[in-house]
Amino acid sequence: MITQWKEEPKAGVTFPEGFVVSGVRCGIKSLGNDLAVLVCDSVANVAGVFTTNHVQAACVQYSRRVARGGKVRAIVVNAGNANACNGEQGDSDNRSMADWVSRRLNVPPDHVLTASTGIIGHLMPMEKIKAGVEMAVAQLDRGAEADKNAVEAIMTTDTYPKYRAAIVDCDTWVEPIRFGGMCKGSGMIAPNMATMLAFLTVDVRMPSELLQEALNRAVAVSFNSVTVDGDTSTNDMCLLLASGMGGSEITVTGQAFEDFVEALSRFCITLAKEIARDGEGATKLVHVIVKNAPHYAGAHKIAKTIAESPLVKTALYGNDPNWGRLLMAAGRAGVPFDQNKVDAYVGTHLVCSQGRSVEFDRLGAHEYLKNKEVDVVVDLNMGEDSATVWTCDYSYDYIKINAEYHT
Amino acid sequence: MITQWKEEPKAGVTFPEGFVVSGVRCGIKSLGNDLAVLVCDSVANVAGVFTTNHVQAACVQYSRRVARGGKVRAIVVNAGNANACNGEQGDSDNRSMADWVSRRLNVPPDHVLTASTGIIGHLMPMEKIKAGVEMAVAQLDRGAEADKNAVEAIMTTDTYPKYRAAIVDCDTWVEPIRFGGMCKGSGMIAPNMATMLAFLTVDVRMPSELLQEALNRAVAVSFNSVTVDGDTSTNDMCLLLASGMGGSEITVTGQAFEDFVEALSRFCITLAKEIARDGEGATKLVHVIVKNAPHYAGAHKIAKTIAESPLVKTALYGNDPNWGRLLMAAGRAGVPFDQNKVDAYVGTHLVCSQGRSVEFDRLGAHEYLKNKEVDVVVDLNMGEDSATVWTCDYSYDYIKINAEYHT
Repeated sequence: MITQWKEEPKAGVTFPEGFVVSGVRCGIKSLGNDLAVLVCDSVANVAGVFTTNHVQAACVQYSRRVARGGKVRAIVVNAGNANACNGEQGDSDNRSMADWVSRRLNVPPDHVLTASTGIIGHLMPMEKIKAGVEMAVAQLDRGAEADKNAVEAIMTTDTYPKYRAAIVDCDTWVEPIRFGGMCKGSGMIAPNMATMLAFLTVDVRMPSELLQEALNRAVAVSFNSVTVDGDTSTNDMCLLLASGMGGSEITVTGQAFEDFVEALSRFCITLAKEIARDGEGATKLVHVIVKNAPHYAGAHKIAKTIAESPLVKTALYGNDPNWGRLLMAAGRAGVPFDQNKVDAYVGTHLVCSQGRSVEFDRLGAHEYLKNKEVDVVVDLNMGEDSATVWTCDYSYDYIKINAEYHT
Repeated sequence: MITQWKEEPKAGVTFPEGFVVSGVRCGIKSLGNDLAVLVCDSVANVAGVFTTNHVQAACVQYSRRVARGGKVRAIVVNAGNANACNGEQGDSDNRSMADWVSRRLNVPPDHVLTASTGIIGHLMPMEKIKAGVEMAVAQLDRGAEADKNAVEAIMTTDTYPKYRAAIVDCDTWVEPIRFGGMCKGSGMIAPNMATMLAFLTVDVRMPSELLQEALNRAVAVSFNSVTVDGDTSTNDMCLLLASGMGGSEITVTGQAFEDFVEALSRFCITLAKEIARDGEGATKLVHVIVKNAPHYAGAHKIAKTIAESPLVKTALYGNDPNWGRLLMAAGRAGVPFDQNKVDAYVGTHLVCSQGRSVEFDRLGAHEYLKNKEVDVVVDLNMGEDSATVWTCDYSYDYIKINAEYHT
C-alpha cells in the first residue's frame, strides 16, 4: 500500500539517486535546446516500450535491441529530426550518435540508447549532432537546472515542458523509492509528425525482467491510455532506467512489486495526462471513463474509441453534452454490450439513462464542459471493470496547426 | 464482361422496371421533404447490409429481420429523427410506421422495411409520420419528379441530393439490367449524428440469397470503402430490391452472376463517391489507393487507416504533399509491410521512393492537391492486390459544423 506520495516541484529525471543529465542547443531545431544526454552513474537496469507502427525510425529498431540486453549507461536524444524513413544512412547515423556518446563517456557502445523526434525523411545533421554530444557530455549535472535543460531539448510542438518527480513510500518497501521523468507529446505533428517520448528514472534495485513487466503494466494504463488524434508515431518510445542506488530492492514478484507497479502507474499517469492536456489546439483535458464493463480490455477499447471520435471531440470543443455521440462511438468499438443498460454522465449530470434520453440540466452540463478538465462517463452496467482514457477536444487550432504547416 | 454502361441523368430508384416512389414533407425536419415510400409492383427479392454498431436504431433491428425473409413490397424511410435510443417506445413506433404502410398498400406487414435518419434520443412525432405515410402512398409515381422528391426526403446535412440510374449490358446476360439508387451520407452528424442510407433497385430476376451475396461484395468495395470521419452510425443501412420485371434472370453463380456483381459494384461506387465528396466541410474528394499489397484485406485496411487519419486529412486540406503522414498512417494499420519497399505518389508525383525522401516538384504536387478530386497512392511493392478508399479532407468547416451544433 502506498503510504507516502510526495511530488517534488521543478525536479525531473535526476531526482532519483544515480543520474545526471544535460540539455543543449546544437541547431537541429530553429529555436531552443535540441539534444539531451542522460547518464546513470552505475550500470542501470532498463525496460522499454516502443511504437507498434510498422514504419519505424532507426532509433526505435536500435534501442529495442539495446533494451533487450537489460543493461545500459546512457540515453542520447535529439529533437528536430526523427531520423525516420532515411534507409541505411539513417541506421548508420543513429549508430554514430550512440558511438560518440559511448566514446566520450567511456562506456560500451551497446549500453547507449538513442531516441529522436522531429521531421521525417530528412538526413540527420551529423556535424551538429557531434558537436551537441560534446557539449552535452561536458554539461552533465543533476538538479533543477539540468532537468529543465533536458526536457526542453526533447520538445517539439509541446507548448510547455512536461516533467515530474516524486518520492514514494509503501509499507512493503525497506526505503522510499524516488521517481523521475520527462516526456513530450502533443499530437502527431511537428513538422511532419510528432512523437510520444518518455524517459523515466528510479533508484530501486530491480532486475530488468521485473522492471519490464512493471513498465508494460504502467504504460498500459498511462501513456497507452492517452490519445490526441489516434495517430501513432514512427518514433514513440518509453524508457525506464533503474539505478539501483536507492535503499530499496525488489527482486521477486509479490506485494512489494505490486506496490511498485501501482506507484509507477500513478507516476506515469501524471505525465501522460499532460500529453493530452497539451494536445494540438486542445482547450481542455477530457477524462473518458468507461465503468462496469465485463473486462478491462473491453472498457479500455470503448473508452479509446470514444476518445478518438472526431464527433465526440468536436462536441466537447463546442461544450455540447451530446450523449448520442458518446453512445454511437461506444457502439462502434467492436465490444458487445446491451444498449438498453447504458447510462452516460457529463461530470455529475446524468445525460442518458438505460440507453434513452433523460431530463437533465442542459445549461448546467454545458457550463460544466467549459472547464479546463472534464469527465465524461459511460456506465455499461454489465460488470465490474473500468478504464480511463485521457484525450483533448478538437478545435479550429488543430486544423490550423496541421493544415497550415507545409513540408 | 460489361459491354454497355449508360447512365441516365436525373433518374433514380424508379428507373428499373417495377418500382414507384414518392417523397413528401410531413414536418419532421425544419425544412424540406422528410418521408419517402418506395414500392415494388410485384413481390421483390431483397438483400440488406446493416450497421455493425452495437448501438442500433429500432429500424435497423427490425429491417434486418424483415430482409432475412428475402421478400418485400415496400420501404418507408424518414429523415429528421433516427428513432435510436428510444427503448421499447421506439420499437413500437417503428412497427406502427411499417403497419400504416402495410395497411394502406394492402401488403403483409412483414413485407415492409423501415429506415430512419436524424436526431437520436427523441421520440418519433407519430402524428406527423402517419399523415406523411398517407400523403406518400397517395403520391406514388415513377419518373424524374418522383425520384427527386424521394431522395430529398432522405437528406439530412447533405448539401445536394445523391441519386443515379444506369442501364447496363453484359455478354452473359439475356437482356440489359437497369440499376437505380439513391443515398445520403455526409458524416456522422445532423443533428446528433448522421447516417449512411442507400436504397438500390434492379429489375433482374434473382433469388434473394444470390442478391445478398452480390450486395455484400458490392458494398465492401463501395459504401464500406468510404469514410468521412471514421464514425459509424447507429442507423446505417443499404437495401437492394430486385423486381424481377426486366428481361434478365440470374439464378445461379457463374459468369453472368460475376458480371452482375461487377456492375452492381461499379454502380454503388458512383453513389459512394458522392458521400465522400459531400463529407462535412469537405473541399475535395480523395481517392486513397493502396497498391501491390499481399492481399485485398490488408490493402483495404491500410487505405482506410490513411483515409481516416486526421493528420493526413488536415494535410490534404492544406494541399500539402506530406508523404511522412501517409507512411505513418499506413504503418499503424496493423498490417505488416517492408517500409523500405514503399513508394508513395500524390497524383503522378513520386513523393517517396523505397520508404525514403526523393526529389520531387513540390510546387507541382501542391498545386495538384488544389483539385476537387485527387489521388494519393501508397505502393507496397509486395504483392498484387489493391484497394481504394474514398474520403475527403478535414477543414475548419468540419469543426464548425460539428462543434457549433448544440443538442
